[in-house]
Amino acid sequence: MNLLFGGIEAGGTKFHCIVADADRQIIDKIRIDTADPETTVGDIIKFFAGRRLAAAGLACFGPVDIDRHSPTYGYITNTPKKAWIRCNILGMLKSGLGVPIGFHTDVVGAAIAESRWGAAVGRRGVLYITVGTGIGGGFVYDGIPHAGTLHGELGHIYIPRDGMPGVCPYHGDCLEGIASGPAIARRAGAPAEALPPDHAVWQTQARYLALAIVNFLFTLTPDIVVLGGGVMHAPGLLERVRGETARLIGNYGQFGGIAANINDYIVRPALGDDAGALGAAALAMDAAKNSSFRES
Amino acid sequence: MNLLFGGIEAGGTKFHCIVADADRQIIDKIRIDTADPETTVGDIIKFFAGRRLAAAGLACFGPVDIDRHSPTYGYITNTPKKAWIRCNILGMLKSGLGVPIGFHTDVVGAAIAESRWGAAVGRRGVLYITVGTGIGGGFVYDGIPHAGTLHGELGHIYIPRDGMPGVCPYHGDCLEGIASGPAIARRAGAPAEALPPDHAVWQTQARYLALAIVNFLFTLTPDIVVLGGGVMHAPGLLERVRGETARLIGNYGQFGGIAANINDYIVRPALGDDAGALGAAALAMDAAKNSSFRES
Repeated sequence: MNLLFGGIEAGGTKFHCIVADADRQIIDKIRIDTADPETTVGDIIKFFAGRRLAAAGLACFGPVDIDRHSPTYGYITNTPKKAWIRCNILGMLKSGLGVPIGFHTDVVGAAIAESRWGAAVGRRGVLYITVGTGIGGGFVYDGIPHAGTLHGELGHIYIPRDGMPGVCPYHGDCLEGIASGPAIARRAGAPAEALPPDHAVWQTQARYLALAIVNFLFTLTPDIVVLGGGVMHAPGLLERVRGETARLIGNYGQFGGIAANINDYIVRPALGDDAGALGAAALAMDAAKNSSFRES
Repeated sequence: MNLLFGGIEAGGTKFHCIVADADRQIIDKIRIDTADPETTVGDIIKFFAGRRLAAAGLACFGPVDIDRHSPTYGYITNTPKKAWIRCNILGMLKSGLGVPIGFHTDVVGAAIAESRWGAAVGRRGVLYITVGTGIGGGFVYDGIPHAGTLHGELGHIYIPRDGMPGVCPYHGDCLEGIASGPAIARRAGAPAEALPPDHAVWQTQARYLALAIVNFLFTLTPDIVVLGGGVMHAPGLLERVRGETARLIGNYGQFGGIAANINDYIVRPALGDDAGALGAAALAMDAAKNSSFRES
């Protein structure tokens, strides 16, 4: 029997839903505009109707409650998207789909997918970072999300910076506040995608991302960093980030080998726009396995 | 039968060895000056001779190779202590003691001990940080060390700083370079222990430690931070660190509850000078358990 799995990547603008088989081939997909929870979840349930899913997975924008022991496990918590505040999105989908559902953040979903099928196959500790309108990151080891009662907010760490007031509404000049797409635009006075590759802003940007990567290296010790998101499409930026990171690491302690092989250490995602939904499908597959032992 | 376990905390100046029972009661202990590997390991083996240990544990200064799949697992790698460079300390102790030996870094050992028997009992994600001549940290979840091929170097992350050249021989103005005991002395022009509690340096120090704690919170999401080391004996410093950390977190996302209960979130160690050796004993107990399934 060819089992089918539902993958749901929940974003603030769009929901991306796929039906995948056990070989992660995508059988069908749909993009749904993010409206209010009832409408959106209704659309999702309609899409999956009649699919006979073995399980589903939800890789969700945050903040969410990922603590399985919490009464609000699977809730979106304190989001700027008013209609979704304290929304029991996991519960709504469980009721509607009637199958076990794996659950984590969107970035952890992408980390799982890149680890299992993408740019990080064969590596154990995998850090996925996305740099776009915001900055986020997820860490998995052997495909298992970093253990925590709360999920990470890797985009909001504090690093040395140049004094420009940051654009993060919560923290000002945290990483997201100084190195997200809107921060680049603020620093350069023009949208990031309009800036030439030799604009001075890209060296600053590369240094900020390198400082963050080194902090994550010293804290989480990933074996590979998958660096994606819209900002990383800027020509030459990945190469600059690699150079700055290698320079910062130098031959320090255990990490010299990383600096010497930086092109294998900081890589682009391989799964493109499907990473999040495929990560959700991976969560579905794990949920199906777990539910053969105990009901999810 | 009352099983006995050997705990070895390996430091650059002293080795601290204990014999503990399964209830972590310390039966005997010794401090051994760190000489060359042969002399020091010889002294350790003499101390444990005739003890009939069920297992031993080694919580070691770093950098060390913690990758069980590596041919140099259990080696000290690239230390400034010349005699110990590429020393197979784990192998020497295994040969000499003839029992299974658990192995990790000194700070992860302390994190395990504080998690199991100390200030963090009942908490799942536990971050132990020590601030002294250097700065180090270890993270465990449910008593299990953070999974990594390499171990963390939490003391060397980069945070926003005031421009004073740092004292870290590797990185200059990383956290250790600006917030260790020697860094405080450099900033204030006098040894940390000679400075009055109202000296301006303590507010700077509190801010640096708070920035680091927030970065670790956003990356590792510990449920509690155990903050020890000689520098933390400065009167009022812990309270300042708590205040700065709560202020930085504010009511951000999932973390508001932490800021509101900061006195329960950032705490002092409970095991004092025995934390490292007790952590090693905990590693010994885990090694004994594992070796009933397969030889360590």
